Amino acid sequence: MMTNRRLETCFSPALFESERHTDSIVVIIDILRASSAICTAFANGAEAIIPVSEVSEAKEYKSKGFLVAAERDGYVLDFADFGNSPFNFTREKVEGKTIVYSTTNGTGLLNLTSGSFQTAVGSFLNISSLTSWLMSQERDVLLMCAGWKNRFNIEDTICAGAIAELLLNSGLFTTVCDSTYAAIDLWSIAKPDAVAYIEKAAQRTRLRDKKLDDCIEFCLMPDFTVIIPVMKEGVLVGIS
Amino acid sequence: MMTNRRLETCFSPALFESERHTDSIVVIIDILRASSAICTAFANGAEAIIPVSEVSEAKEYKSKGFLVAAERDGYVLDFADFGNSPFNFTREKVEGKTIVYSTTNGTGLLNLTSGSFQTAVGSFLNISSLTSWLMSQERDVLLMCAGWKNRFNIEDTICAGAIAELLLNSGLFTTVCDSTYAAIDLWSIAKPDAVAYIEKAAQRTRLRDKKLDDCIEFCLMPDFTVIIPVMKEGVLVGIS
Repeated sequence: MMTNRRLETCFSPALFESERHTDSIVVIIDILRASSAICTAFANGAEAIIPVSEVSEAKEYKSKGFLVAAERDGYVLDFADFGNSPFNFTREKVEGKTIVYSTTNGTGLLNLTSGSFQTAVGSFLNISSLTSWLMSQERDVLLMCAGWKNRFNIEDTICAGAIAELLLNSGLFTTVCDSTYAAIDLWSIAKPDAVAYIEKAAQRTRLRDKKLDDCIEFCLMPDFTVIIPVMKEGVLVGIS
Repeated sequence: MMTNRRLETCFSPALFESERHTDSIVVIIDILRASSAICTAFANGAEAIIPVSEVSEAKEYKSKGFLVAAERDGYVLDFADFGNSPFNFTREKVEGKTIVYSTTNGTGLLNLTSGSFQTAVGSFLNISSLTSWLMSQERDVLLMCAGWKNRFNIEDTICAGAIAELLLNSGLFTTVCDSTYAAIDLWSIAKPDAVAYIEKAAQRTRLRDKKLDDCIEFCLMPDFTVIIPVMKEGVLVGIS
């Protein structure tokens, strides 16, 4: 096994240094709620997810008969079948289906990181399976926190910290990245009660204000699924 | 006293949202070593510091007889009187003098934040005086971590956390900023032994590798001085 693989963490898309990660696996973390919703969709049998940037594009897919998930600032767009809540992606609705997905943050991030070796989607929901897979891939890893409108956020950072802790404990990775150390330290504080810890997160308040916060506990639950969503030729598919 | 003043923290110049801080006091934090060196210069009686961006500009000032501090990547430039170590700025050398200062990071930051209401320089060395002054100013505050080449760094973050803790404890400030909460939490871990905590910081290693790390303990020492460097018409002057 190749050891001494480089592990880094990026706290905002605005801090992404693409040229440094062309050979890395980039893990996109946007736990409230895009990356948790995507993991749930695959857990419930979705075949593939097609990320699109523009609402107009999502609408066009809808008119062709696709299932469409589309939200802006947390709210489901009127023509869409789903928004951004993981609870939308029930087995009944998604099993065997290809879903077109347009989110505020997520789609842009998938484009931003498309120059990396591979892009995967991470959350607490698939953390054990994701980290085992990363250990087996013989690649450097960048944990890419989606943040919010380019700002640092707490919820993605503690998830990055939880993932980083597992990767470093394997002995296969090393890091000289301050963001990774900070994420691990914040996770060490959050770990005993992550639901309570993220009470202070701005996104926690935003979701509560919009009455979109029913899924918080679920999004912090480890190992709901073993499936790892990865980008293949512009489309997300689930591997395990 | 105006309460409910907004307190925010920014982890990198690349994340600075200038339009949101035109009425705020921005505190620039670059503790290893620019902001510590600047605080030390004023503590030892410097009259003013003229920040300049370009090495050529610094050279020109030198030829006019000014004292010049100039470094790139930690190293003193050959024509300069000082580098970036606070130990360079002794009373003997700086008392009553105006110093021209060009650093890798710092000068650019002063330009970046020049659209704010006021810019001050913060470090552990002036933390009590700085926070008392901020409390008295009836202004929103942004703690601007210099980072390193636009990356998040641990040392500036814990200093921001220490400042934020004091400001929030005053009851005059509130925050809904995830970066501020994270900085305070990291400071809570670092506080019992900050010298040990920043062992893992990349800048700690860089300074050790370059044998420029003799000043680490000093830079983490609270309240070496009561002077607060602030920008006035393009020049840093000391107030208290």
